[in-house]
Amino acid sequence: MRRREGKSESRDKEVEEEESSISSLWSEVRELSLGTTSRIERLDSPPSPLQFLRDFVSPNKPCIVSNAIHHWPAISSWTQDSYLSQKLQHTPISLHLTPDGRADSLVPLRPYEDSDLCFASSHVELMPFPQALQHIIHSSDSDSPFVAYAQEQNDCFRSEYSVLASDVETHIPWASEALGCLPEAVNLWIGNHASETSFHKDHYENIYAVVSGEKHFLLLPPTDVHRMYIRDYPAARYSFSQATGQFTLQLEKPFRFVPWCSINPYPSSSTKQAHMELFPRYFNGPEPFQCTVKAGEILYLPSMWFHHVRQSPDSKGRTIAINYWYDMQFDIKYAYFNLLQKIDFPCAGVS
Amino acid sequence: MRRREGKSESRDKEVEEEESSISSLWSEVRELSLGTTSRIERLDSPPSPLQFLRDFVSPNKPCIVSNAIHHWPAISSWTQDSYLSQKLQHTPISLHLTPDGRADSLVPLRPYEDSDLCFASSHVELMPFPQALQHIIHSSDSDSPFVAYAQEQNDCFRSEYSVLASDVETHIPWASEALGCLPEAVNLWIGNHASETSFHKDHYENIYAVVSGEKHFLLLPPTDVHRMYIRDYPAARYSFSQATGQFTLQLEKPFRFVPWCSINPYPSSSTKQAHMELFPRYFNGPEPFQCTVKAGEILYLPSMWFHHVRQSPDSKGRTIAINYWYDMQFDIKYAYFNLLQKIDFPCAGVS
Repeated sequence: MRRREGKSESRDKEVEEEESSISSLWSEVRELSLGTTSRIERLDSPPSPLQFLRDFVSPNKPCIVSNAIHHWPAISSWTQDSYLSQKLQHTPISLHLTPDGRADSLVPLRPYEDSDLCFASSHVELMPFPQALQHIIHSSDSDSPFVAYAQEQNDCFRSEYSVLASDVETHIPWASEALGCLPEAVNLWIGNHASETSFHKDHYENIYAVVSGEKHFLLLPPTDVHRMYIRDYPAARYSFSQATGQFTLQLEKPFRFVPWCSINPYPSSSTKQAHMELFPRYFNGPEPFQCTVKAGEILYLPSMWFHHVRQSPDSKGRTIAINYWYDMQFDIKYAYFNLLQKIDFPCAGVS
Repeated sequence: MRRREGKSESRDKEVEEEESSISSLWSEVRELSLGTTSRIERLDSPPSPLQFLRDFVSPNKPCIVSNAIHHWPAISSWTQDSYLSQKLQHTPISLHLTPDGRADSLVPLRPYEDSDLCFASSHVELMPFPQALQHIIHSSDSDSPFVAYAQEQNDCFRSEYSVLASDVETHIPWASEALGCLPEAVNLWIGNHASETSFHKDHYENIYAVVSGEKHFLLLPPTDVHRMYIRDYPAARYSFSQATGQFTLQLEKPFRFVPWCSINPYPSSSTKQAHMELFPRYFNGPEPFQCTVKAGEILYLPSMWFHHVRQSPDSKGRTIAINYWYDMQFDIKYAYFNLLQKIDFPCAGVS
């Protein structure tokens, strides 16, 4: 990027140098702070607020905390379907339905055709919790016409699920003290092995607690934004017909674009080659950070980190997690990120 | 910088866009975090370690703390020349001599000629403290052949000045707890009104305590690095001859370059116009942050911030300060800074 000396240099040369500057940012942040393996640091017990702030929040670095929520009544009671169904007997909750478990993800607007991709939101059905839970458990069967996922992200735990409030903590004390505030939103997630969340980032500090089953995360720091190939995709929504047992996918009206990560980290064998050629910065760059968060553990997912989530169910066929979104600080890190995001590439490669 | 769409755009257009991206970084970090005036936040008493870490260290934001060191014996005892001279009667200390009080600054290699600038270090003379103190006090007189400044920055307070240890705290408790370590270096500064430190940055978290007199700071955040016009200058050193009362300035052998900020924020009326034309990003950009730190106050000067320092003496003609350098975290902020620094401009303007 040394344009000052660059009058005689070709534009290609400049682009090459810009790309190498950005790929050295990817390695530098790993060598300096995050570590050069794909492992996430583990703590055997909750950190002090000061340690959490100094060693993880301030450097924007994830960690997994064991023995963090073992004292929650939910750890035992939520493993019983009967307990949950009784508590929430008359509570209507929002259930998200998709053909394949991939809500808020990129799919061809017209399946079976090689059409353009759109950003597909799930079909949302309001129904009594006991019925929703049965759908979640049984929709992992191969003959189910849909995959059901309770994943409303509108502070749902403090609204729809408020009767369960006393089974967990209303906030995570060491995180609240470190961050100097209470959670902005608390969300409950109940899914099965088929449910998957595509790569995205949130403008929150995220404390993610797994109550039952396991969550599998792929994580990339904000410095790696160019490896996500964020592009604008037209917004669409699934609609499921009880009558036909079929989904239709239609563009939202009014038409709008959603900027979203283009990367599918687990492409099918038939699309893998094409995907790797289209998105070399992801596939040729440093391996993403990986972790499995088990029941009783907490993942600190720092603000602006890109994350992709899959899950393994417990013996009853469900994965249950609750996450606390805390407001992030819009400070110098955020301003740097916005500058980085403005740097764009004419071509894909950085190998 | 939207090169992806840029195949048809001229290079000048791209450069313009790159410059506007960087100048919006300057305003964004102010609007989001630092504030849009030139004022530095003031605290009436020391913050808790958690508050200091969350509100200032993590966002890389300076603050001034009042009533921070009023309990130090130094606050009263160091105002007495007799006390200091008696304590340090037989202690040889390093005194820095320059013709004009500007050590470690850019001056023409051959004065009175319009020659190239070099990075000039001071002449360092080892002498008993009492004699050094008299030099400091009297070298502010117009007829003095030199300006003397005790400003050795090699942890001198814990070596040369160790007999004064009990007059201050060995570290700043709330800062040490927040940063999770003890100071890497502690330096003492004794100067007069003529002593001035040119714009530079340090790779340390800096706790700067003024014991007597006042220090006047100009501060710019690391995001503003392009406004400093850091260039390589040949290293030179002053040599003062007692016999002739004259300074000579010679290039260091072996020859070496020092990267240094090109900005003099207070150019003489004769050079001001040229200076402003050479360095428009400094003079046309946002006003630097400014503060005066009085006796008894502490300035938190965050790592990597550019700072320029002048001083006003107490009634005895000296300004005394002590600063604690703590190791900084080389985290994502530092990696972002290194990327930013690589972006360079073919031309000067940003207006």
